[in-house]
Amino acid sequence: MRLTVFSPSGAVEDGLALQRALERLRGLGFDARRDRAAMARQQRFAGSDDARLAAIHRVADEAPSVAMATRGGYGLTRLLDSIAWKKLARSVQRGTRWVGLSDFTALQLGLLAHTGAGSWAGPCALEGFGRTDAAGGVDDVTAACFAEAMRGELEAVGFRTDAGLDGLAVRGTLWGSNLAMLCSLLGTPHMPKVRGGVLFVEDVNEHPYRIERMLLQLLQAGVLAAQKAVVLGAFDAWAPSPNDRGYGLKTVVAHLRSRLKVPVLTGLPFGHVPTKVTLPVGARVTLAVQGRQAFIGWGHG
Amino acid sequence: MRLTVFSPSGAVEDGLALQRALERLRGLGFDARRDRAAMARQQRFAGSDDARLAAIHRVADEAPSVAMATRGGYGLTRLLDSIAWKKLARSVQRGTRWVGLSDFTALQLGLLAHTGAGSWAGPCALEGFGRTDAAGGVDDVTAACFAEAMRGELEAVGFRTDAGLDGLAVRGTLWGSNLAMLCSLLGTPHMPKVRGGVLFVEDVNEHPYRIERMLLQLLQAGVLAAQKAVVLGAFDAWAPSPNDRGYGLKTVVAHLRSRLKVPVLTGLPFGHVPTKVTLPVGARVTLAVQGRQAFIGWGHG
Repeated sequence: MRLTVFSPSGAVEDGLALQRALERLRGLGFDARRDRAAMARQQRFAGSDDARLAAIHRVADEAPSVAMATRGGYGLTRLLDSIAWKKLARSVQRGTRWVGLSDFTALQLGLLAHTGAGSWAGPCALEGFGRTDAAGGVDDVTAACFAEAMRGELEAVGFRTDAGLDGLAVRGTLWGSNLAMLCSLLGTPHMPKVRGGVLFVEDVNEHPYRIERMLLQLLQAGVLAAQKAVVLGAFDAWAPSPNDRGYGLKTVVAHLRSRLKVPVLTGLPFGHVPTKVTLPVGARVTLAVQGRQAFIGWGHG
Repeated sequence: MRLTVFSPSGAVEDGLALQRALERLRGLGFDARRDRAAMARQQRFAGSDDARLAAIHRVADEAPSVAMATRGGYGLTRLLDSIAWKKLARSVQRGTRWVGLSDFTALQLGLLAHTGAGSWAGPCALEGFGRTDAAGGVDDVTAACFAEAMRGELEAVGFRTDAGLDGLAVRGTLWGSNLAMLCSLLGTPHMPKVRGGVLFVEDVNEHPYRIERMLLQLLQAGVLAAQKAVVLGAFDAWAPSPNDRGYGLKTVVAHLRSRLKVPVLTGLPFGHVPTKVTLPVGARVTLAVQGRQAFIGWGHG
């Protein structure tokens, strides 16, 4: 399986880390290569806007089995009005699985909005496979789940969720994943209009009050009430403020639940954390809860 | 002139600072009092959602000459779906000038969206008038401009802007001010639909890439192209990243100008900075540039 890593967003700072990621991806059985502009740089970006746009289109034309972002950062927002979405959708028809997270959410949701084509929320090359062993190395669960998903062998993921949701069973379009990027599409033509879906969100470096503000924007925009379930992944690496006085992520979840009839699940192992699943954005899925065990399945069985 | 300070958002941490602000506002000639819940607290908020909502409505019923927020922070987003907008609009008809910035932008733009009533972007009590002299005290320009605006004596403000805009003269509805709050309303019923306006924005603690992402969201949502001018205030207190490599606020302004035909002015003295003007949100204004001198005027002359 050909796997091409490319850089649509932030510049790759550490070429050795990218090399390490490619070798590890080869160890998982992929014919892993890097796009020729994967190491480009202009200011904080992985090359000029034109160069990053060309890289996306080049990868779409190549249509590898897996098209993986090297990293997130910032940069896709600049390109959204210029991406040839049909070209990307054709690559998906030819079998390409586009995969990444964070800033990459903008590409994934734009693709879904403009063409209905699916993609995969999963690790980027650097954070998933490029770290030294001293920095945590490769997470086995993340690697196995990613490889199975890319081979088409993964049909469901499970995770432990809150009490009180036993018996929940819904079916709809799975979509997400980065909350800030999702909100950055609100009001624009790049925001998918998903009704009756299963929305999952995660974020990093955002204080709970900002997470709450974003969730309330989605609520006030009518997005949340139009879903069958909202699934919360990891919200990591935020610094508490001395003024919080007990306000935190639990407060946010409780407040959201007080305003929304749609079930809100926590515990999805996805986000800017080492251990994460790989999930099909835009696919029809079943979300079911038995006791405190939740399943998201997309198999045909 | 009765001036009531109230707390719709974050809790006031320092009661002495609020007392100092009230005394200084009295020194400017206002009959300054605090709403009875101005010092309330629940977690990071100035009281429960119900208590803060009641305070807003109580101040609207009282209809003082000036209704000033003690501070920003976070909290109005939770209340937007519950505020009795017509009650606030009636207070405006009775002569109340609502004034504040930052989180308060949500109330100001919601009021404009739901009723067309105007308000004032200007200092909050604590940051404008509550600091000790050691911490910078009261800025004379800020205080004088605020007091004149509240007395109805101020009809224009001037500032030095970029070269190349000499001769610009447009007329439209002035609106703003906090960029993050403005974007947090996109897609919701609380976002004003202002066409042919003069939009001014500011923010604090946001890296330029986040400022750019927000501006591009407004661009992609069609908001910026519908204005006659975009005026940038202060974007302060952000920490550069070692990966920026020359990317900064100037890059953001240049990129925005490359994507937008509408004139973009910088230099408006407004935002989370000591020296700032007080501006009428929702008013018809004239924006004119002579050389590098810009004027925003709302007089009837």
